[in-house]
Amino acid sequence: MRDVAITGIGSTLFGKHEGRGLESLAVEAANAALRNAGVSRKEIGALYLGNFIAGPLSGQEVLAGIVADELGLENIPCTKVEGACASGGIAFRHAVLAVSSGQCDAALVVGVEKMTHASGGQVTQALNCAMDNRSDGPSGLTFPGLFGLAWRIHAEKYGTTRDEVSSVVIKNKANGLKNPLAQLGAELSFDTIRQSQSIADPIQLYDCCPVSDGAAAIVVVAKDRAKGAPDLPIDVLASVQTRGSPRIAGHRDIVSFDATVKAAEFAYRAAGLSPKDIDLVELHDCFSMAEIIDSEDLGLVPRGMGAKWAAEGRTRVGGDIPINPSGGLLAKGHPVGATGVGQLYEAVLQLRGIHANQVKDAGIAMTHNLGGSGIACTVSILKRPDA
Amino acid sequence: MRDVAITGIGSTLFGKHEGRGLESLAVEAANAALRNAGVSRKEIGALYLGNFIAGPLSGQEVLAGIVADELGLENIPCTKVEGACASGGIAFRHAVLAVSSGQCDAALVVGVEKMTHASGGQVTQALNCAMDNRSDGPSGLTFPGLFGLAWRIHAEKYGTTRDEVSSVVIKNKANGLKNPLAQLGAELSFDTIRQSQSIADPIQLYDCCPVSDGAAAIVVVAKDRAKGAPDLPIDVLASVQTRGSPRIAGHRDIVSFDATVKAAEFAYRAAGLSPKDIDLVELHDCFSMAEIIDSEDLGLVPRGMGAKWAAEGRTRVGGDIPINPSGGLLAKGHPVGATGVGQLYEAVLQLRGIHANQVKDAGIAMTHNLGGSGIACTVSILKRPDA
Repeated sequence: MRDVAITGIGSTLFGKHEGRGLESLAVEAANAALRNAGVSRKEIGALYLGNFIAGPLSGQEVLAGIVADELGLENIPCTKVEGACASGGIAFRHAVLAVSSGQCDAALVVGVEKMTHASGGQVTQALNCAMDNRSDGPSGLTFPGLFGLAWRIHAEKYGTTRDEVSSVVIKNKANGLKNPLAQLGAELSFDTIRQSQSIADPIQLYDCCPVSDGAAAIVVVAKDRAKGAPDLPIDVLASVQTRGSPRIAGHRDIVSFDATVKAAEFAYRAAGLSPKDIDLVELHDCFSMAEIIDSEDLGLVPRGMGAKWAAEGRTRVGGDIPINPSGGLLAKGHPVGATGVGQLYEAVLQLRGIHANQVKDAGIAMTHNLGGSGIACTVSILKRPDA
Repeated sequence: MRDVAITGIGSTLFGKHEGRGLESLAVEAANAALRNAGVSRKEIGALYLGNFIAGPLSGQEVLAGIVADELGLENIPCTKVEGACASGGIAFRHAVLAVSSGQCDAALVVGVEKMTHASGGQVTQALNCAMDNRSDGPSGLTFPGLFGLAWRIHAEKYGTTRDEVSSVVIKNKANGLKNPLAQLGAELSFDTIRQSQSIADPIQLYDCCPVSDGAAAIVVVAKDRAKGAPDLPIDVLASVQTRGSPRIAGHRDIVSFDATVKAAEFAYRAAGLSPKDIDLVELHDCFSMAEIIDSEDLGLVPRGMGAKWAAEGRTRVGGDIPINPSGGLLAKGHPVGATGVGQLYEAVLQLRGIHANQVKDAGIAMTHNLGGSGIACTVSILKRPDA
């Protein structure tokens, strides 16, 4: 297997794109990534597109072929992959595999979702396609309900408090204010969060990521082809994909996701690294409690300490392990199929040293994308070439 | 890249599975394939699942993880791929790549669709997700309309007649009668077809494949691991994937699909073979006219002669090139995401010499799976080891 590098990244704003279609968002991000990589359309040998719910929400499938056609790519394999909220990370992994296995020398990854045109009820119903609807769906347990349950157990086991969890929200919302792509950056107080609407007790409004539109794209190439790239190429040390139980009842422990634990283990092994080597992480904070669980599952924060570390400022830019300097899903937004690709976009900016919320001397970055009730996960580790 | 062989196949009946879920169909087919391959669940290193419209029709995504969980597979990458009606073929290609590139030694492919529980209107609307709905959808041109147009042009260019086209239907329906998995085998007369309901002139009822439920599964392994398999392993000589225009107006010629022409070219080259080496083909006859176009695009029948060869009996079992001895989509059925995998199932039975409608001395078989308005295509070439 050959070494692979990222040479191009592109992204739309995350947020509300009224009157624009899925295809237009995907094409904007892809064109930006192709320009950034300095590759011609002719050089792209495979396209992987991550999308979750364009079928139910927009009546549109075959997006990989549609986007390739609009971009004017050659007659190459164009594949949509789906793993709920991990669709983008899965698309990236397949592009990396296409290049590392020698199928082609350059591949394009696109993640895209359009959600804000639909009603809240339609969005909730579509998102529930990520559950195993033979059990969890009919039980009425939506995703806020799942993370509300997890919160209660985390609080009971580790004494996690409302204000500690709010520290995650305050940090990510503040990070989002610095990110020009972010949908909902904000300066929040503990009081504002405490007084916000209850969603699925103890989860309140600000604990939830917004409904978003957006697209992000990445160009990956064989490392020996990356030299002439206009911008700094970033090495891909690991890109792994795992699975977990589709059902809440299938998890040994609701405050830990097997898919994340395994993905992290595989990724550290593939990269020859350990958690202490990671300079920053973009992880899947669909809810504030998700960030807490993820950071522990990834081994970046001691078990049970996810919220406390946030409260102590250890997960801020400048802290022990900066988590979601982009603002994460909570503030940057969560256009589902685009999210995993957007995380990689942010990580590359950090490793190039040009992020608007830069982690000083960032050399190694991790991204973590989790789907459904922990059914699918991808973890990638990227490296600045001189790090 | 390593050589790859198919060691296991499994399938449900194609047809109406009232009261059964998608997952149950997929698991039935997968268990049969695992048993047939004689591999343990622990040996499977990747799962690819082809599905098209479980989101809109059943409100269920993340099927790859759900099926892996129910099968008790290890913590392996489980990926749903989508390319409209070519989803199954795309899943197969990715499993072949996973093994040939050394990611794992054995991979499982599952194709599944459940459609008959929905109303006709819901099914039509869901199938239209395979069009580019910025243009073709709003124009009101459904898939019968597309193939009706193609028929008119084929008739004008090559003098193709209603009865010549009916010869395709009569052949496939008769083949279907011999296939224990087929949904709608029948003994039909030219008169019956001529008198059947008009769907999208000149297309009539019997020119269309039915709406179907079903699942099929395949186990692929590294060739050097295939030796101990209980049943005859079948070599995979080629498995390629291409794209074409998503829009009808994007095709140079509506009686030929670029995606098929290119896929055939790439597959022949990869296999080191030419059309005359193919002993039988399972191709994508979603409509009678589709079989005619496909057989010409694949180079198996001279351009313009698709219908005439059928009328002359040259595409029957025993003829020059047996096309769809399984009954094809027209008679076996078309559970969309399962179709491409089901075609491989049929081809393996032929190459093992145990098909209910056996092609004598079959040594090389081709399968062809086409999605949308020709937006995605896969072609595979399989070989009996001693052929």
